[in-house]
Amino acid sequence: MNGAESLVQTLLSGGVNVCFANPGTSEMHFVAALDAHPGMRCVLCLFEGGATGAADGYFRMSGNIAATLLHLAPGLGNGFANLHTARKAGSGMLTIVGDHATHHMAYESPLKGDIPGLSRSIAHWTRASPDATSVAPDGAQAMAAARSHNGQLATLVLPANTAWQEATGPAEPVPPSPLIRPDLARIQAAAHTLQLPGAALMVDGPTLHGDLGVLAAQIVKKTGARLMAPYLAARIRRGAGAVAFERLAYGVDDNAAVLKDVRHMVLAGAQRPTNFFAYPGKPSLPEAPNTAVFDLCSRGMDVGYTLNTLAECLGITTTDPYDCWPQALPALPSGPMDMALIGQAFAHLLPENAIVVDESITLARFFMPPTQQARPHDWLHTTGGAIGFGLPNAVGAALACPQRPVFVLTGDGSAMYTLQALWTMAREQLHVVTIVFANRGYQILRGELANVGVTQVGRNALRMLDVEQPQLDWVKLSEGHGVPADRVTDVDGFVASLRAAMAKPGPHLIEVVCPV
Amino acid sequence: MNGAESLVQTLLSGGVNVCFANPGTSEMHFVAALDAHPGMRCVLCLFEGGATGAADGYFRMSGNIAATLLHLAPGLGNGFANLHTARKAGSGMLTIVGDHATHHMAYESPLKGDIPGLSRSIAHWTRASPDATSVAPDGAQAMAAARSHNGQLATLVLPANTAWQEATGPAEPVPPSPLIRPDLARIQAAAHTLQLPGAALMVDGPTLHGDLGVLAAQIVKKTGARLMAPYLAARIRRGAGAVAFERLAYGVDDNAAVLKDVRHMVLAGAQRPTNFFAYPGKPSLPEAPNTAVFDLCSRGMDVGYTLNTLAECLGITTTDPYDCWPQALPALPSGPMDMALIGQAFAHLLPENAIVVDESITLARFFMPPTQQARPHDWLHTTGGAIGFGLPNAVGAALACPQRPVFVLTGDGSAMYTLQALWTMAREQLHVVTIVFANRGYQILRGELANVGVTQVGRNALRMLDVEQPQLDWVKLSEGHGVPADRVTDVDGFVASLRAAMAKPGPHLIEVVCPV
Repeated sequence: MNGAESLVQTLLSGGVNVCFANPGTSEMHFVAALDAHPGMRCVLCLFEGGATGAADGYFRMSGNIAATLLHLAPGLGNGFANLHTARKAGSGMLTIVGDHATHHMAYESPLKGDIPGLSRSIAHWTRASPDATSVAPDGAQAMAAARSHNGQLATLVLPANTAWQEATGPAEPVPPSPLIRPDLARIQAAAHTLQLPGAALMVDGPTLHGDLGVLAAQIVKKTGARLMAPYLAARIRRGAGAVAFERLAYGVDDNAAVLKDVRHMVLAGAQRPTNFFAYPGKPSLPEAPNTAVFDLCSRGMDVGYTLNTLAECLGITTTDPYDCWPQALPALPSGPMDMALIGQAFAHLLPENAIVVDESITLARFFMPPTQQARPHDWLHTTGGAIGFGLPNAVGAALACPQRPVFVLTGDGSAMYTLQALWTMAREQLHVVTIVFANRGYQILRGELANVGVTQVGRNALRMLDVEQPQLDWVKLSEGHGVPADRVTDVDGFVASLRAAMAKPGPHLIEVVCPV
Repeated sequence: MNGAESLVQTLLSGGVNVCFANPGTSEMHFVAALDAHPGMRCVLCLFEGGATGAADGYFRMSGNIAATLLHLAPGLGNGFANLHTARKAGSGMLTIVGDHATHHMAYESPLKGDIPGLSRSIAHWTRASPDATSVAPDGAQAMAAARSHNGQLATLVLPANTAWQEATGPAEPVPPSPLIRPDLARIQAAAHTLQLPGAALMVDGPTLHGDLGVLAAQIVKKTGARLMAPYLAARIRRGAGAVAFERLAYGVDDNAAVLKDVRHMVLAGAQRPTNFFAYPGKPSLPEAPNTAVFDLCSRGMDVGYTLNTLAECLGITTTDPYDCWPQALPALPSGPMDMALIGQAFAHLLPENAIVVDESITLARFFMPPTQQARPHDWLHTTGGAIGFGLPNAVGAALACPQRPVFVLTGDGSAMYTLQALWTMAREQLHVVTIVFANRGYQILRGELANVGVTQVGRNALRMLDVEQPQLDWVKLSEGHGVPADRVTDVDGFVASLRAAMAKPGPHLIEVVCPV
């Protein structure tokens, strides 16, 4: 067996059975090895950002790592932005990058590049296999790294000759690093702090969508603290029956208003909140200066143990009460185009157990509030602030959860970044409904230009903010990728289109022409 | 004046007046500064690979550097692949990356990333400005770096506060590093070597398209050496009247055949040839083992001085003879679809002084030979071996040479990488005719799978090589971006379409349905 085969078998025995791929010549032995192992589901992406974004979405919805297969430094570069977003989401991923044969690296061939250097600027773990017998054990170590600290980015660089030369066989799985736990005294101190006036418990990660969320909600119910979540969540459970989290805000002033009465902020599996951007004369940190921040446990530590022990310290039992949202659907609206009504229609129609991938940026304000009490669903944000996350993430989420309908809410500027993911939706016949809000530009930048004090906008600036002249035609773009699509110009059209898209299998795209 | 204004004025006074941009919040002061300086032509790209690829094409055709304006680490990551290609082309570029304000970098905000680390994995020069008064002198240094050694990648990281805080004013231009020259004795030795049996002069860079090419051709005419060019050229002058270069090949065996009789290879502004990829049991270097390689001057040295001095040593005068191609147009073909006839039709119709951006990969064999004696033109290759170069490069070439028609030859797999560049062609009304060869897959990989010894291809592998199920509709994809398009299924249709596209202003796309 060659190195490539030893790696594929190592991956499969380690529980990695999905590979989002965009291979090239240096990965041909790996492709050949995949051929012999149909247990590995190979999903072709027509751009590497589609592969890395899909692996992120797959982890968010399955909790398991997927592999990506990329082609040398330019392939990894193309995947960089969605690796960035995955890193911020805390997603575990195994990025496999084919490289030149080791003996070929002495020469300046066209594709020679600094793959390890590039990887180290984004991944937690980077290793280049030196020879074929190392490929399988390195693969096992890479999987362990990707699963350590609740999810990390691991890059395995595979020189072509390590794939084609003879290996000894697959490697045994390696356990991830044990999760670090805070001292009991620290947890007891947190239990005390949460009972002080102005206390808040800030959570993130799996606590936002799983059983730990209920525990966190019972803790704050008992202590009187507030339960808070970041502005951007990798995945948050919402709708009827979901735990009631208070969410931080995007704007500096809004964020400060949310946190102004917090005197003690206990971080449990959450990072210290920070404002999205810095602005002249405005602070980087959103909390009031007299707020004490208590770092109980980071998101890479044993959050489950920590919250369970915290609950024990407070004498909480499984039957203790907690606040959750009752169902309250808005009425089905009708009439001319109005984004508030579109948001209500979406909330009204959102089916139970849907997955919503949200890259709607400035338009999110129309969708988050009305869906808060819709049918139960999961909501995924662009955690890294980089656009081009939505369509690829939806591919991964749909593959992880084939029984659940997936919806993408995206602006036109964002969707353009990785529109090639539409093709993968069509090929894999994923039940993803992509809703593109055609507001003909980077609307957030208009606001940001004002935020930095620019009130007069001239031609050079306008042409950097508008996606007009020409307008994009999303129906054609979508159909060009093999995804059926239609354009809606009023609320009734949107309702009809969304209903039809939900009722049929496979992907669909709806272009919503927004009033600007 | 603030830091952003001081930088824009520094750029303009240093001769940089085109900026390919995809800005975000952290660059809003820069956008505002651009507003006040209409002398800077701002070109919006809907994806950063479009911006970096355009700057590469702009340098190739103008010899001058353009700026790009990107948004934090993900923006730079998205631009990485075409930076890689530009680096291999020897193109000079000034990449400006907005970052968070320096005081904001202490916190883990969504977009925080390792911009300098990422840049150092690809650029020759990287600097992050520490404060507003440094921005202008750093910008001048960055321009000098981008122009040094005949063209380099320079990255200037601009923290947001260095753009918005008060600066002292623009900076004076800084000269690039003086070009290094080989010793006279070395040049004399090269003059001797070139007269030995089996000598070849290998050139690259501007020698392939300018006056130096004539000098090189006179040198080999005098010495009896062969005049050779790399397989991939950033820009090469071709067609009637062009210097006759022998070009290296893609395949290992083909390359060895080209070089088998070369005993003395003199490199003048060219890198040592290497095979594209390594394969089991095949060499990395294409020349015969008994070939002596004479490294006269690297491409970052003073190639003009070197060739002129070499010519002097050989007693060459401006009127000395040299070999160039006479014009010989193939007849205009007709009939059912046949790629050889499509190549002939293209060669027959190619107008004088056209620019051809070639990402046709496996299909190049149908286009290079018939155009060799077509009307005079320039030909641009994807020097980095990374796909997604063609459409963006054409944008930059067209902006550099608004009077010259630009043609892109591209496979469908390649064009998908950076198809967003079509929109920029439409907005800027560039006269670019994009010819997409729809062969429904990564045809080169089928060959490569065979090259590595895989003869049986199963479902997992096939699905990684084919872009089918569904087929892409390039007419819709193009029209969706605002570029008129049509699909041709025979040679006559291609001829009619190409003629019509050439006769009108603005961009056009032709989808050529290839027999697979």
